[in-house]
Amino acid sequence: MVNTRVLTGLMELVPERQLVFDSMKRIIEDEYASFGYTPIDTPIIERAEVLLAKAGGETEKQVYRFEKGDNDLALRFDLTVPLARYVADHFNELSFPFRRSHIGKVYRGERPQKGRYREFYQCDIDIIGKDVLDVAYDAELPRVIYSIFSKLNIGKFTIRVNNRKVLKGFMRAIGVEAKSAQILNVLDKVDKLSKEDFLKLLRALSLSDETVRQIVAFSALRGEATSVINALVNMGLRDEEFTAGLAELSEVTELMQMMGIDPAYFEIDLSIVRGLDYYTGTIYETTLDDHREIGSICSGGRYEDLTSHYTTFALPGVGISIGLTRLYSQLLELGLLSSDAKTIADVVILPIAKEQLPEVVALAETLRGAGMNVDTYLNDVKFKTKMKYADKSGIGSIVIVGEDEAASKSYTYQNMVTGEKERLTADEIISRYNT
Amino acid sequence: MVNTRVLTGLMELVPERQLVFDSMKRIIEDEYASFGYTPIDTPIIERAEVLLAKAGGETEKQVYRFEKGDNDLALRFDLTVPLARYVADHFNELSFPFRRSHIGKVYRGERPQKGRYREFYQCDIDIIGKDVLDVAYDAELPRVIYSIFSKLNIGKFTIRVNNRKVLKGFMRAIGVEAKSAQILNVLDKVDKLSKEDFLKLLRALSLSDETVRQIVAFSALRGEATSVINALVNMGLRDEEFTAGLAELSEVTELMQMMGIDPAYFEIDLSIVRGLDYYTGTIYETTLDDHREIGSICSGGRYEDLTSHYTTFALPGVGISIGLTRLYSQLLELGLLSSDAKTIADVVILPIAKEQLPEVVALAETLRGAGMNVDTYLNDVKFKTKMKYADKSGIGSIVIVGEDEAASKSYTYQNMVTGEKERLTADEIISRYNT
Repeated sequence: MVNTRVLTGLMELVPERQLVFDSMKRIIEDEYASFGYTPIDTPIIERAEVLLAKAGGETEKQVYRFEKGDNDLALRFDLTVPLARYVADHFNELSFPFRRSHIGKVYRGERPQKGRYREFYQCDIDIIGKDVLDVAYDAELPRVIYSIFSKLNIGKFTIRVNNRKVLKGFMRAIGVEAKSAQILNVLDKVDKLSKEDFLKLLRALSLSDETVRQIVAFSALRGEATSVINALVNMGLRDEEFTAGLAELSEVTELMQMMGIDPAYFEIDLSIVRGLDYYTGTIYETTLDDHREIGSICSGGRYEDLTSHYTTFALPGVGISIGLTRLYSQLLELGLLSSDAKTIADVVILPIAKEQLPEVVALAETLRGAGMNVDTYLNDVKFKTKMKYADKSGIGSIVIVGEDEAASKSYTYQNMVTGEKERLTADEIISRYNT
Repeated sequence: MVNTRVLTGLMELVPERQLVFDSMKRIIEDEYASFGYTPIDTPIIERAEVLLAKAGGETEKQVYRFEKGDNDLALRFDLTVPLARYVADHFNELSFPFRRSHIGKVYRGERPQKGRYREFYQCDIDIIGKDVLDVAYDAELPRVIYSIFSKLNIGKFTIRVNNRKVLKGFMRAIGVEAKSAQILNVLDKVDKLSKEDFLKLLRALSLSDETVRQIVAFSALRGEATSVINALVNMGLRDEEFTAGLAELSEVTELMQMMGIDPAYFEIDLSIVRGLDYYTGTIYETTLDDHREIGSICSGGRYEDLTSHYTTFALPGVGISIGLTRLYSQLLELGLLSSDAKTIADVVILPIAKEQLPEVVALAETLRGAGMNVDTYLNDVKFKTKMKYADKSGIGSIVIVGEDEAASKSYTYQNMVTGEKERLTADEIISRYNT
């Protein structure tokens, strides 16, 4: 017999879990649509030269690459490179600012470890401007994050905002521009380090005590936007980029509040770094208050030029990404997801005997017409077997149709949790479903 | 500059087309759900040994296969093999009969030619029984086909039904069992051949004139179920399998009518063959009446054992598949699809000036709360540029918010087709959307 186990690092879910995963995906998809982000779908297979145009060491090692005929191919490892190619390729057919959403699988041949997948869903939105893109869009993306995680209902979360210009300007202003990459690298880990280890790593970069003090003070700045902004202003640093970043950060956080994000759900966090090359302005991370340890569940930011590797025009953009496969598996492990039914059906209809098939079919059609998902049991077996099927499917309620039900059009409606039975008409069943 | 064109044989759509494609996919998805078929999602990457366990020459040549680390991997070329593996692997966690739907991408490295794709969506449903699966399920699947293609609204179609037992029994009864594979192969092409060429191919198999006459008469039987059944009965053939198949065909077509399929939308067609190995009973094809030339747009059938290559138990099933990528491209070419908007938004809101941003944001939230998809234009540019954006996006209607609108909460609602403007409240905009 062939080994039918799924390969390590690939997620495959049984139906009751798949349904939960899908409902999370649907919430994200619907929220993206409600803000006008239009879905695109690009091939999972790309030319290797396109995917690897700007990829570096780790990514290049992880990529699934293969030849077919004369083509040097690879599986996409994110949705950003395909977006850049898509925009470059279809430039004249798009309307800018271009709002696009993309939910799809990406591939990384990572060493399998807990929480890491080789095939996983990313759920991205980006908005791409032609030449210009107002900073107001930087505030809209956290608004989308706020909607999604409120609806996902997985506990209190905090959207953490920072600005790369503030970070870069600060490093220059305190005279450590040359070491800023290493310092930001340490800063990025501040949440995972003890205060002692954090200091040790900073000192290892041969910084003066005063510089270390300044960095520690800076990295500790987090919280309600106005107070952090004031503290930054009070630093009195003179650097053009710092000042510009501060103005952006101030405008973005004001607009976030104006856009209806509850201030309890966001803060400025100057320790947020997000990689080193890509982002150039506003950056975001999102954490669950009760589970900071799982890291950011939605991140993103502003970049100056999406397609610099493929085109000669400037396309500034801002985007966010949710790594859904990873998020799902983390929430599952934390016990924050519950799943009951193994079926997408809202109800299953069981005929007592074969003679009731026409009635079962007609009733099913009526319920479907009202938007219900209806499973009908069609095997001609003992009724006990039919009940066992309904029971095992974990469905909340079933409808039983016998001779009497068929004649009276009043069906036996059984709550599978309490066992309680009632007689309901089709209309009454529909109104149960709608409430 | 890197070549950003999509590889030959991979479909990538601009937004206005993607939206049409997605709406077709959503109709299929929703109909599958409404009949209680629960979605699963399996990895696109599988062990090569699993995928190729029963694949033959052509498939094996077309498969994308590659190594990563110690793994011999391949991209799935259909959704049936992954289903078999899934059922074998999760057997004890599933409830039977197991209704599953699967909409996903599959890969075949075919020589690129018109209408053939190397990456394409398949939309499958199957219902798998444990040991038994009533023939009533064979009638339910055409019922699903009927719903889907009615809703897709792409013209009159006909679901063609046949039964492999009738075919096999017939060949045995007329004494040509040994040549049945070749004969069925010719039969499969009858629609594409002139009568002359059809006869020529049959004669090339060294059949007697009488046998050729019988096959021609048989293959010409198609149309309304009862009359075809009667004609088959009147043939007076004595073969157990033929008789069993005839009984199934008769029951299935009766049940199809009982299930509410308009008899004008289905017929028995004895020339339907569907491959040679896999199917064992009822088989289906679906054709567009005005476009028979594009072939079957939804096919499937009954099989005796889904997982014979992976397990030792018997799992009979019946399923259908829609090759959505191909169908979409055929309908597009036939001019049967129209696409207008380049955006998923139902409306775009334009502020006259930056000062109206708070009002725009608040109005957008109100409309989103009512289920609308709302795009807000946030760049602080000349109003003419904003209108140009709205115009280029192909959206049906826009809302303009100036000082007066913000003060009166009565917004300028402009129909982008007629240019007509009205003043509407948020509630009035919502009721426009709901009608």
